[in-house]
Amino acid sequence: MRTGIWLIGARGSVAVTALIGAAALRARLVDATGCVTELPPLRAAPLPAWSDLVFGGHDVVTLPLLKKAETLAAAGVVPGRLVTALADELGRTEQELRPLPSGDTQAETAGRIADDLRDFRDRHGLDRVVVLNVATTEPVVAEHPAHGSLDALRAALGEAGTVLPPSSLVAYAAFEAGCSFVDFTPSTGARLPALAELAARAGVPYAGNDGKTGETLVKSVLAPMFALRNLRVTSWSGLNLLGGGDGANLADPAANAAKVASKQRVLGDALGYQPEGTSRIDYVAEIGDFKTAWDLITFSGFLGTGMRMEFSWHGCDSALAAPLVLDLARLTAAAHRDGRRGALPELGFFFKDPLGDGPSALAAQWDALTGFAAGLTR
Amino acid sequence: MRTGIWLIGARGSVAVTALIGAAALRARLVDATGCVTELPPLRAAPLPAWSDLVFGGHDVVTLPLLKKAETLAAAGVVPGRLVTALADELGRTEQELRPLPSGDTQAETAGRIADDLRDFRDRHGLDRVVVLNVATTEPVVAEHPAHGSLDALRAALGEAGTVLPPSSLVAYAAFEAGCSFVDFTPSTGARLPALAELAARAGVPYAGNDGKTGETLVKSVLAPMFALRNLRVTSWSGLNLLGGGDGANLADPAANAAKVASKQRVLGDALGYQPEGTSRIDYVAEIGDFKTAWDLITFSGFLGTGMRMEFSWHGCDSALAAPLVLDLARLTAAAHRDGRRGALPELGFFFKDPLGDGPSALAAQWDALTGFAAGLTR
Amino acid sequence: MRTGIWLIGARGSVAVTALIGAAALRARLVDATGCVTELPPLRAAPLPAWSDLVFGGHDVVTLPLLKKAETLAAAGVVPGRLVTALADELGRTEQELRPLPSGDTQAETAGRIADDLRDFRDRHGLDRVVVLNVATTEPVVAEHPAHGSLDALRAALGEAGTVLPPSSLVAYAAFEAGCSFVDFTPSTGARLPALAELAARAGVPYAGNDGKTGETLVKSVLAPMFALRNLRVTSWSGLNLLGGGDGANLADPAANAAKVASKQRVLGDALGYQPEGTSRIDYVAEIGDFKTAWDLITFSGFLGTGMRMEFSWHGCDSALAAPLVLDLARLTAAAHRDGRRGALPELGFFFKDPLGDGPSALAAQWDALTGFAAGLTR
Amino acid sequence: MRTGIWLIGARGSVAVTALIGAAALRARLVDATGCVTELPPLRAAPLPAWSDLVFGGHDVVTLPLLKKAETLAAAGVVPGRLVTALADELGRTEQELRPLPSGDTQAETAGRIADDLRDFRDRHGLDRVVVLNVATTEPVVAEHPAHGSLDALRAALGEAGTVLPPSSLVAYAAFEAGCSFVDFTPSTGARLPALAELAARAGVPYAGNDGKTGETLVKSVLAPMFALRNLRVTSWSGLNLLGGGDGANLADPAANAAKVASKQRVLGDALGYQPEGTSRIDYVAEIGDFKTAWDLITFSGFLGTGMRMEFSWHGCDSALAAPLVLDLARLTAAAHRDGRRGALPELGFFFKDPLGDGPSALAAQWDALTGFAAGLTR
Repeated sequence: MRTGIWLIGARGSVAVTALIGAAALRARLVDATGCVTELPPLRAAPLPAWSDLVFGGHDVVTLPLLKKAETLAAAGVVPGRLVTALADELGRTEQELRPLPSGDTQAETAGRIADDLRDFRDRHGLDRVVVLNVATTEPVVAEHPAHGSLDALRAALGEAGTVLPPSSLVAYAAFEAGCSFVDFTPSTGARLPALAELAARAGVPYAGNDGKTGETLVKSVLAPMFALRNLRVTSWSGLNLLGGGDGANLADPAANAAKVASKQRVLGDALGYQPEGTSRIDYVAEIGDFKTAWDLITFSGFLGTGMRMEFSWHGCDSALAAPLVLDLARLTAAAHRDGRRGALPELGFFFKDPLGDGPSALAAQWDALTGFAAGLTR
Repeated sequence: MRTGIWLIGARGSVAVTALIGAAALRARLVDATGCVTELPPLRAAPLPAWSDLVFGGHDVVTLPLLKKAETLAAAGVVPGRLVTALADELGRTEQELRPLPSGDTQAETAGRIADDLRDFRDRHGLDRVVVLNVATTEPVVAEHPAHGSLDALRAALGEAGTVLPPSSLVAYAAFEAGCSFVDFTPSTGARLPALAELAARAGVPYAGNDGKTGETLVKSVLAPMFALRNLRVTSWSGLNLLGGGDGANLADPAANAAKVASKQRVLGDALGYQPEGTSRIDYVAEIGDFKTAWDLITFSGFLGTGMRMEFSWHGCDSALAAPLVLDLARLTAAAHRDGRRGALPELGFFFKDPLGDGPSALAAQWDALTGFAAGLTR
Repeated sequence: MRTGIWLIGARGSVAVTALIGAAALRARLVDATGCVTELPPLRAAPLPAWSDLVFGGHDVVTLPLLKKAETLAAAGVVPGRLVTALADELGRTEQELRPLPSGDTQAETAGRIADDLRDFRDRHGLDRVVVLNVATTEPVVAEHPAHGSLDALRAALGEAGTVLPPSSLVAYAAFEAGCSFVDFTPSTGARLPALAELAARAGVPYAGNDGKTGETLVKSVLAPMFALRNLRVTSWSGLNLLGGGDGANLADPAANAAKVASKQRVLGDALGYQPEGTSRIDYVAEIGDFKTAWDLITFSGFLGTGMRMEFSWHGCDSALAAPLVLDLARLTAAAHRDGRRGALPELGFFFKDPLGDGPSALAAQWDALTGFAAGLTR
Repeated sequence: MRTGIWLIGARGSVAVTALIGAAALRARLVDATGCVTELPPLRAAPLPAWSDLVFGGHDVVTLPLLKKAETLAAAGVVPGRLVTALADELGRTEQELRPLPSGDTQAETAGRIADDLRDFRDRHGLDRVVVLNVATTEPVVAEHPAHGSLDALRAALGEAGTVLPPSSLVAYAAFEAGCSFVDFTPSTGARLPALAELAARAGVPYAGNDGKTGETLVKSVLAPMFALRNLRVTSWSGLNLLGGGDGANLADPAANAAKVASKQRVLGDALGYQPEGTSRIDYVAEIGDFKTAWDLITFSGFLGTGMRMEFSWHGCDSALAAPLVLDLARLTAAAHRDGRRGALPELGFFFKDPLGDGPSALAAQWDALTGFAAGLTR
């Protein structure tokens, strides 16, 4: 089952790390550390093989893939030896990247995006294509009446002006082209009633939002721990220090708000109440892709005794995100092949702010994920 | 179902915190924070009510309960107002405490312990008694041929000399008296073939070992997190700084060895390999009951990228342990009533080093525990 | 030398902790831990004795001192036994507290404040009075043309409207009444040219600003450490989590700005450049007076190798501030007696944002302080 | 003033980082970050210039310098571009390295070492040579009667058997050859009465011991901070996790003991009492040269209020040590030229366990160092 993966933000750190990693896995230069789909219960599932994957994508920047790969190597995100060994492969993928199109109306822009997707599928004889958003986070978007129904949306897109944020326009185009869609960012993406309607009609699945790679991942196991021990979390405060492209973007308070909200949601879900405290994001260019998050949790135990826990997480965001991007592409493609349409809440394991009403505790999300994989037909 | 709880080490910090807490819960002076049996899925189980519990116990020290309670209040472990309000109640329990008996042979000592247990049960008309070991940790014990079978053990106990460590002698006496047994410490307790044989014959259940209250609790959710994300833990090192009675005892390398081993076991179980590193315990009198543990975890992700996580846990050991002691007493009594005999691996949720081959990940242990509770007959 | 200490914000946590502490020192119930003036080189200086100190003060709130003291004891800031032992003494000081006066113009208000100060001095036959601001932090204040000269200020104060923020009006009144002034807060206080002129004319000294009790104290030794080793600090970011009265106030971004600026100043001074990063303050009611600060410092060493340091500081702000308040009162009173007038830059050791151009490294500030003390005439 | 630097352990991480760094500084490929002698007050001192330095050394291992340099680059300790650019230079230094000689008696071994030193000096026409020990730490050494006087020592060295540990034999040989000596390790080195006597007779200076690069450096500013604020440190505990050559060696309890003792000494010196707690060293191969140290400090303030501070230090030991090695060589050579003989306590700034009775607070050590530099004659 030849599967295309079309990356929105294809020249960014996460995308290029994923491209290098997929090529290295195909060439058996690395093991699959970090790839969830290679763990025992999922490894047996009927997913596209590493050698079935073909990559393409859109980006607004033009930095050559190889240049970006060298930057990542210099920063310690990927090993330099892989960049050297895979330079030819990156050169071939370079040919599959396109500038993000734009037209006079959003309908026209979406049409051109969909054309690029169809062209990619046809050129490579792909069974299906997953469109995966790893572009930088958008500002929170104002509601628009046309978001409520597909008919209203189609009418509005045909006129001048901006109805959909870029991530949602891409989801629209993906669905129109019969492609599935995964949003790895906190942007709006497919989370609009009109787009749910379109996905259902087009018979394609989608998943999201906001890949869970660091502080929130830890929260999704620690918050249930406190809950299962009936300890009362009285405050939970955090600070995320990060550089890199997404860091600069998140310094914008509008984008920040979306991310911060999705970071605290897990606490209310796991604990049954929202403890005091917030999770902040600060941009520190110097820190680059190796994010540091610090959290302080105060809690009270038996007879009201006050206690504390702190943790620091020093993670490389791109190295944590890239294998999950590949996992999500394989799983979503398999769901598509199996005839699933609409939201895939079973993939909540991967996200800070999952679609649907699934569990927020990591262990429960894992059960949902393995159940999903077990149900895939060969 | 009137249930006796007989505490070995009844004048220690954990026991006295449990006594104060149980009295405060009966008097509705506090809520049940920290009590796992009060969480939704367990709350519905047919367990003895708080008002069904009667306390007694053995200790080698003679410090009056009220004095110990005042010390705990001064150290911030329990609120002073509870000690004042419950002074009469503590005075009544004081009457139920006995010095740990001793005889010319271990058989004779065990006989006297069993007499104390029967006397306690008869005096209060109890349906059953749970014997709970919260005494300080023993040194690791040498194997002895008589540990292998009940007949050999009985013969050996009748002679002069030491065959069983104190915790195991107590378990022996408990089983002889028809009582269940829970070991909250890393001591040997019931973990000998001869004692398993006796419990089976006597028709009583037992649980253990080593209450999971701090660093290991956190490990039991973090290690599965790394495993579920297919991240490779390359080292996991820790330092536990603690004062208090158990702290001084654990500074003894012999006792320390038992505890340190049980602290790292969860890693191998959850990860499938044993990462580099050890977990140390240091006694710092000044720190008292408010233990600080620090762990450094190094791990590698996709393409071998190295990352790190640190956590510090500042917990009050007695406040964390006491509600679990009450939970275990209620659960073990209910199992006893239901006719369970032998080890109770379903209670692994509570222990660093659980009996049997159960899971070591906290979420899986929780599932086992709620399954156990759901199976109890009313 | 009988010395009055007049506290602005006399019913707040810092002031009441200082009152209890001074009474306890006089009664020899505690040792002088935390009091810098009791260290060897300063102990020999001719400062007012503990028994020479008389306390009074203003506040806008009316909570009785004893009530506030009990609250502090419940929160673990002061020992309950001291509150019990010193209840009578607190009752006597209660008689010396006055509501902060207010008049139709700021000149009238200042006149009433000065009357209270003169009345306090006369009633107790005091040689001199130090006015000490420990009220909550004010918002940053807009410049006003009348701040530039004493004549313009006097004219403006006589008219309707607000020319000076409360802290500066208090400094004005103190100088008019011949009292010295210390600002332990980041508020404007005496830092206006018109007030410098008045202090010079009145022949009184003043000191400030913003007591250095936690994160900034640590910065004032760590930043010089990096500088002396020629290590390049590439970023320094921090988060301060605090509850309590000042915490709530600092959640106001306007007040916050003043504090945050004074917190980063030490870095530029000690390093010779301003590293990336900011120091944030978040209000977490639950945390109360026991503030937690976390800082991440990234630095580069020989050949550009990147390294990191983190620290967490869990300090009780009132317990850290109160002894310094007493130290400052003793030192400022001695300076006043010695005929010093105007700013006292030698007291920079105590402040985040010291007056004058003194050193910002703690060790150099200590040298300046001991030099100052050695120069005091008996 | 052409100055030779003879490194004992010349193929180790610290030595090779120093070699690369010195070559890079000469070639102006890097700035002098991490070099204390390039800070303003020392930069003006009459020290040998970077271009005056010539390197040679002994080692027991035979790994080529370039190979070691490549390993360091792969581990992120030095930039790969420098290794490439300086390969020729490293090749030239390779020619100056010798296997550590050995003879039938220690006298014979010392004679061969001294011959190597004289040969190095003559071959390059050097004004003087500094012998610098950066070999791995030795086990603590048993006392020997011959350590007490030079005559006894000379007699004993001529017989079979081991009188001096390797570091002391090197110091002996250095002094015999008229070279100064610096011990950057906690080994015995020159710290024996017989060697002090020899240095005095030979008219050469020496310095040591145990370079202060991480946890102890931080202690040397934090301990004085607590002291200057009259805060009582009630416990100070630490854990050092390190890999690399010296890490493996320090896992040996005998070597460990020396290091641990020198790590806590600064506390007693700075505080005037020894707080509870120890500083542990654990070997974790995975961590390599990037050491992590964690310290917990508990302290009490005014009225006995308990507080805490924690820090984590993630430092690259070789990158921290190498520039100090170069600093020490320049300073010791200048002292030698100026006719200084015997111990140089003014260099205590660089050491965990300085020779002589100098201050242990970093700021005071800095004052001693700048005083020393100011006194050097041109």
